[in-house]
Amino acid sequence: MKPIPTKDDLLNARQRIEKYIHKTPVMTSHSINELLQCNLFFKCENLQRAGAFKMRGATNALLSLSNEELKKGVITHSSGNHAAALSLAAKTFNTKATVVMPKTAPEFKKQAVVNFGAEVIFCEPTVESRVNTTNSLIEKYNYTLIHSYDNPNIIAGQSTAAWELFEEIQNLDYIISPVGGGGVSSGTCLACKYFNPKVKVIGAEPKGADDAFRSLRDKKIYPSINPKSIADGLLTQLSELTYNILSDNIQEIITVEEENIINAMRLIYERLKIIVEPSSAITLAVILEKQVQFKDKNVGLIITGGNVDLNKLPF
Amino acid sequence: MKPIPTKDDLLNARQRIEKYIHKTPVMTSHSINELLQCNLFFKCENLQRAGAFKMRGATNALLSLSNEELKKGVITHSSGNHAAALSLAAKTFNTKATVVMPKTAPEFKKQAVVNFGAEVIFCEPTVESRVNTTNSLIEKYNYTLIHSYDNPNIIAGQSTAAWELFEEIQNLDYIISPVGGGGVSSGTCLACKYFNPKVKVIGAEPKGADDAFRSLRDKKIYPSINPKSIADGLLTQLSELTYNILSDNIQEIITVEEENIINAMRLIYERLKIIVEPSSAITLAVILEKQVQFKDKNVGLIITGGNVDLNKLPF
Repeated sequence: MKPIPTKDDLLNARQRIEKYIHKTPVMTSHSINELLQCNLFFKCENLQRAGAFKMRGATNALLSLSNEELKKGVITHSSGNHAAALSLAAKTFNTKATVVMPKTAPEFKKQAVVNFGAEVIFCEPTVESRVNTTNSLIEKYNYTLIHSYDNPNIIAGQSTAAWELFEEIQNLDYIISPVGGGGVSSGTCLACKYFNPKVKVIGAEPKGADDAFRSLRDKKIYPSINPKSIADGLLTQLSELTYNILSDNIQEIITVEEENIINAMRLIYERLKIIVEPSSAITLAVILEKQVQFKDKNVGLIITGGNVDLNKLPF
Repeated sequence: MKPIPTKDDLLNARQRIEKYIHKTPVMTSHSINELLQCNLFFKCENLQRAGAFKMRGATNALLSLSNEELKKGVITHSSGNHAAALSLAAKTFNTKATVVMPKTAPEFKKQAVVNFGAEVIFCEPTVESRVNTTNSLIEKYNYTLIHSYDNPNIIAGQSTAAWELFEEIQNLDYIISPVGGGGVSSGTCLACKYFNPKVKVIGAEPKGADDAFRSLRDKKIYPSINPKSIADGLLTQLSELTYNILSDNIQEIITVEEENIINAMRLIYERLKIIVEPSSAITLAVILEKQVQFKDKNVGLIITGGNVDLNKLPF
């Protein structure tokens, strides 16, 4: 297992990435608070560079490389926000990013990566093809693999979103973080553990992709098989590293219905006037499902990203 | 003609409303700047209370009333953002707002007003019915009419959006403001005239609702007859007051194609990740249409509001 990031790792990450990322705003909505009878604080990583918190981890990962490694370039397999963030970070540091993507990936996701100047290599939409394609490119070009969450530097980078949030908003009772592969939720757990242990971390997962919920319950990592959710950033499974961090630190994972993800998304669009992904709206969906649990509490929500296909909004 | 707001009127308005409104953020987008070759500063009044700059004018108008007038309640005829803002402001100051609305107004607009606690009175969708209905209510209940733009206190309130913008962003060359009835554009002109005369104010109007453009060109107020534009906040005509302020102070009005309004709206959704109305996106549409004119300039855009029917997005 890769090492769990230490307090110093988080401190270094925060200092290292500061000038390359936005300190995103924390938004509130009087009307949503009134409606749901609690005090919600939306940490708007949808307004982060490249449209997602992934910029934090990608930047930290690149800044953790040696000059020689950086020069040779980096590679990842992802069709989502990590790929776009790694591409933009690579551009920032004048190196090359290669992104291995299933050829079935939506055009607008491919376009985001290409726009930031990365090279896209298509593979078949299977794990085998993805791994083989990636490995053969690493062998050939000596690229460094930057995994989207099974990487301590990525997790240390992601921790800074929650950290900024509880620094700005005192007296939070909870922070709710989406759980996909466990990158941002692990980072959130570690930030709280090291710097604000009073805050409880809750994970949010779609019922249709609840492998992390089942993994923590049954104390073994389940693969994510045929997950079904509109929250397309949350379909991946935990790694050994993220499983261990979550099982030691997270209060609980709450799973939510698709309908509530869509309702939460719409509520955010209408009241906060910001564009968020379903994978972000799921944090508010947790409140919709468990109003009693959060009544009168101060709750931070990690709004992880805003990259949606506007032609396919669910309303 | 009603009196043109003085420098003191603006100073008083700013001080008066400060604690009742949000100081909205100014957003920028590296990628939009790169694409359009200029430096754009989006003054996000879509994030204002009640979702639009109208909250500024409505608050100032109510705070300008005597206690007796305030107690009797206020009335307006509008189906748009002014109605919602006046309703919320009235709620804030514990008085009653009545809104006269054509019975053909969209349900979601009616709902916004009702949610803020105002009484909605429906009239036929004609000017005559609207005026008669409003006047008979004023006669009966002694309400004070708060017109959405033909009112110096409203204009003084609206001026504070541009004022905050050029205070925060030094060295603006231009501020672009949408032009409907001329409330926010007049306020923008006066803020610049009194406090930052180096900034040139540009008006943005749909080609399909270009009555203000023609009015300034031909030096007489044209009525807005059968206007056609997706920018539903910009279909009204100038009053004598706003005509006079604009004709003395605005640099020019630029009219834009519908297609560019929609393209600009999409660009804002995709890159800034915020929800804006077509009537706001028109300011960016001006840049899309006149790239040469604004090349390398620092341009402030008044993003007036974010109240859209999510079921009817144009993409």
